[in-house]
Amino acid sequence: MSYQSGYGFPADVLTDRARMERLFENNWFFVGTRGDVPKRRDYLQFQIFDEQYFLVHGMDGKIRGYANRCPHQSARLVGDQTGRCAARIICPNHQWAYDMDNGAVVHAAYMPDDFVKSCEAKDFALTSIEVREVGFMLFACLGDNPDHGSMDRMAEIIAPYTDPFALAEHGYKQAHHSREIIDANWLHAMINNRECCHCELNHKRLLNLFYPSAFNGAMTPEYQEVLNRAQARWTEKGLAWEEIAFDPHDYFRIARYPMVEGFKSITFDGELASQKLIGPFVDGEPDSGTLSFWLNPNCWVHFVSDHIAVNWLLPLGSEQTELYTSWIVHADAKEGVDYDLDHLTDVWNVTNAEDVGLCKSMHDGAKSRYYKPGPYSPQEQFCIQFSDWYMRRSEADA
Amino acid sequence: MSYQSGYGFPADVLTDRARMERLFENNWFFVGTRGDVPKRRDYLQFQIFDEQYFLVHGMDGKIRGYANRCPHQSARLVGDQTGRCAARIICPNHQWAYDMDNGAVVHAAYMPDDFVKSCEAKDFALTSIEVREVGFMLFACLGDNPDHGSMDRMAEIIAPYTDPFALAEHGYKQAHHSREIIDANWLHAMINNRECCHCELNHKRLLNLFYPSAFNGAMTPEYQEVLNRAQARWTEKGLAWEEIAFDPHDYFRIARYPMVEGFKSITFDGELASQKLIGPFVDGEPDSGTLSFWLNPNCWVHFVSDHIAVNWLLPLGSEQTELYTSWIVHADAKEGVDYDLDHLTDVWNVTNAEDVGLCKSMHDGAKSRYYKPGPYSPQEQFCIQFSDWYMRRSEADA
Amino acid sequence: MSYQSGYGFPADVLTDRARMERLFENNWFFVGTRGDVPKRRDYLQFQIFDEQYFLVHGMDGKIRGYANRCPHQSARLVGDQTGRCAARIICPNHQWAYDMDNGAVVHAAYMPDDFVKSCEAKDFALTSIEVREVGFMLFACLGDNPDHGSMDRMAEIIAPYTDPFALAEHGYKQAHHSREIIDANWLHAMINNRECCHCELNHKRLLNLFYPSAFNGAMTPEYQEVLNRAQARWTEKGLAWEEIAFDPHDYFRIARYPMVEGFKSITFDGELASQKLIGPFVDGEPDSGTLSFWLNPNCWVHFVSDHIAVNWLLPLGSEQTELYTSWIVHADAKEGVDYDLDHLTDVWNVTNAEDVGLCKSMHDGAKSRYYKPGPYSPQEQFCIQFSDWYMRRSEADA
Repeated sequence: MSYQSGYGFPADVLTDRARMERLFENNWFFVGTRGDVPKRRDYLQFQIFDEQYFLVHGMDGKIRGYANRCPHQSARLVGDQTGRCAARIICPNHQWAYDMDNGAVVHAAYMPDDFVKSCEAKDFALTSIEVREVGFMLFACLGDNPDHGSMDRMAEIIAPYTDPFALAEHGYKQAHHSREIIDANWLHAMINNRECCHCELNHKRLLNLFYPSAFNGAMTPEYQEVLNRAQARWTEKGLAWEEIAFDPHDYFRIARYPMVEGFKSITFDGELASQKLIGPFVDGEPDSGTLSFWLNPNCWVHFVSDHIAVNWLLPLGSEQTELYTSWIVHADAKEGVDYDLDHLTDVWNVTNAEDVGLCKSMHDGAKSRYYKPGPYSPQEQFCIQFSDWYMRRSEADA
Repeated sequence: MSYQSGYGFPADVLTDRARMERLFENNWFFVGTRGDVPKRRDYLQFQIFDEQYFLVHGMDGKIRGYANRCPHQSARLVGDQTGRCAARIICPNHQWAYDMDNGAVVHAAYMPDDFVKSCEAKDFALTSIEVREVGFMLFACLGDNPDHGSMDRMAEIIAPYTDPFALAEHGYKQAHHSREIIDANWLHAMINNRECCHCELNHKRLLNLFYPSAFNGAMTPEYQEVLNRAQARWTEKGLAWEEIAFDPHDYFRIARYPMVEGFKSITFDGELASQKLIGPFVDGEPDSGTLSFWLNPNCWVHFVSDHIAVNWLLPLGSEQTELYTSWIVHADAKEGVDYDLDHLTDVWNVTNAEDVGLCKSMHDGAKSRYYKPGPYSPQEQFCIQFSDWYMRRSEADA
Repeated sequence: MSYQSGYGFPADVLTDRARMERLFENNWFFVGTRGDVPKRRDYLQFQIFDEQYFLVHGMDGKIRGYANRCPHQSARLVGDQTGRCAARIICPNHQWAYDMDNGAVVHAAYMPDDFVKSCEAKDFALTSIEVREVGFMLFACLGDNPDHGSMDRMAEIIAPYTDPFALAEHGYKQAHHSREIIDANWLHAMINNRECCHCELNHKRLLNLFYPSAFNGAMTPEYQEVLNRAQARWTEKGLAWEEIAFDPHDYFRIARYPMVEGFKSITFDGELASQKLIGPFVDGEPDSGTLSFWLNPNCWVHFVSDHIAVNWLLPLGSEQTELYTSWIVHADAKEGVDYDLDHLTDVWNVTNAEDVGLCKSMHDGAKSRYYKPGPYSPQEQFCIQFSDWYMRRSEADA
């Protein structure tokens, strides 16, 4: 059965790992924020399909990506999900050491002294991947010909929204980071993210914070009034708010949305998650709204007045997907004083756990002998957009 | 190596999943009893190979089977092993709703209002499978051409035995239901069920309740006397007792057997498991015997004076099998008053746990490079019957 | 990429299970010691690839190996890792019984009386594999044409080292035995064993007992002095000490090495692990040295004054390896009196746990798309020897 726009993916697309690998090979994908590796030598590890990589904040301030595998005898270089390297990247197995800023071998333990300077040593430098930083966020590309033009265009468009959050280098820290393996196809996890029809039955607590219309594009008179008031307020404060939704560029969406009036942050009680405000709010009042960003293929990021809630997905294969979540706060915010970790993380911990079950359920059902792609509601425009985009961008000759 | 009657299955038959799937596609198999779903809207979920289904007791009183997969976006419709639906079957993901009695879409949430009445909606009705009820028991067939004649013949033959247990619709309830995955081939699990030679070393406690001769067909003088007394008693009480053992029809066996004299139920202490008697005993005395029923390919059911102990197997693949057990009691029996759950379930919990280990051991051994099919004892007639039946019924052109 | 001596294995060699199976089919491998099955009827079970076997100490005193699978209906014969059989080997499923010393069926429960004496019964004897005992140690070969000449040559060479440990039949016992599955290729586990460069960072506690030079062949002036003193002492005591390291025979190494002076046993505190000395030390003083033996493809054994620490590896496939460790002590040593189990086992429990992590790390890294074989340090001669030996011995026409 072939793909039909407006319907779910055919079963053979869902299990086509080669297609999924092509997509991730040829497109930029989200891998975290500068707030995840705010200081020199900080690293953040991630896995895509069977391959491990890590981001590292270089001695020169630039953030780079390397395969997490020692070129000497294939041991893992960094073991934890997040941490800090020594001044050089040192393999914990045989002590070979690599330059953080270019990956070169700088010490080959037990090898003859002249090995490091030999031609052969160049063959054993770290494997690097392309990493771009745009508006505080980090994007990687595995393939040899990354499309820098697409990042340039996006950078230009989102600058008015994200520049106010671009504090000085050490302005943020990762208050918490979590990783969870979902027993579901990455396509199901993405569709679930772009979809709103499941919220009513499954995200009852989240719906205390947000108007469904903010995400599903179905305008109601009540929401129109809230939106009008919010947009007037944002204009007054000089905050960019016009929505750019996969148009004219088909790979990202950015928009400012009102939260339920009175809510100061993404918390179940509506109170601030952190007492240190950030970005455009650092010297002012919290705003009852979120700046939200979605990239095809894999993220959703919510900038609020006191923290940035970052969610992204990476496929581990056609049967498993890994969900990454970071909560980024002001560098000076102190746990237990300025923020309580449970209060800060509760909304996405609860919501993501609900989504994990939904994804697995759809994934299992799609393996049925009786499976056939079902129709999307007309208001699920972002599911359709993502599906069309995926089919187009993952073609064999793309 | 090809199959030889009187010997175990060749290794390539044991791993031939396609053959196993053909068997289950083209033959009725046991899936529970009316006592497992005694009230309207009750459901019982089960899995065969990679596919989930559920039985549901319809608003019209009939019990039907549906694939447990929402035709809309493939989410699972019922999540628990057993439970009760709303008045319609509602998908917990996007709230589509289906008619319990015919599977039609009756509400397509977020879709245009006219969708439900459209031609397309018919494509998204629930997938149903054939379910037959015979003598209180439920049988399903996955294929498009179920052999209703075989069920008709069986119904006629077993009616004198099972009709006395056919109480009014709400006459039973499921006191307990368990499911356990066995890491063994379904064929090994069935052979183990049909076999008696392993009992002496492995089911020491069960042998306090039953005479081995009752199951292995090897008559002893002591057992002949017990049997004579029991048959005289059953005749007097008007209980059918003649054994029908895979002859002339090759797919089922029914028989009434004496328990060790003095035992009133299938309990380790011989005392009643439930104070509310059932079926032909409802207004009388308990009888020290069981009415037992075995169906090829997958069940063994024991009707006693106060409960019905129901065991069945469904293959999950060539490496795993799921064992289902239900204990059905009188609808009015109260837990803690009329029955104690441990006392009721102990015998099959203990015996099945012993069997699980035996099945896994044979399964593992059959994967050995040194494996060859071994001979059955002449008294293991039911192993040989099952094996011959399986080979015949699962042929590619069957 | 083809294999190059001095570098790691190419990726396709690491995943070539058929090559690994050929190696184990055509070469003797280590499977334990007489101290693991010291008394008649003692058994020790092991698994290689998907096949289970067990060693059993026969009624005639000889140690034999059998497939752990009943020829009758494929059940497992012995269930625990180590234990004691009845006077005959009895299948726990259907009670067939086999002669321990030749594997013949001696009782076929429920079969006709004349079955045991029939020609057919011979087809259902236990499957045996070749087992050789050399210098207290046990070696098995799966294939039909074991190279007895290689064992004869090894026996002759190691006799001066191991004969002093060959006590009377019941002179030893297994104080403890452990098995652990490593999620790594057996080749990575072996390379890790033959390698010393990882010790400095990863085996800090072990390095309190041993001079790295003792294992990596890199002589230091300090170690040369220690070695000179030790060799003078051994000569005086009549203990063989010349190292024989894969030359001229390419499959084993034996050597006596000094421990750090003052250490009496392989314990973290240097004190005796057991108060009952063994072998050449039984009536004398403990010696601060180990007699160590390595066999290609799979073991490392350390004989010290009071116990024998035995480690061996068996592949379960190309993704998993099982590590076996035994601690053998004097038969008269009493736990809690002569030895404390934690004190005895601590060094290898700690060291092996460290190695398990290293092996998994290298294994995972070698599956990377970026993997290429890296260079060994010139002092890693034993990694190179093992690798060259493996490639040569596992050729398809070997």
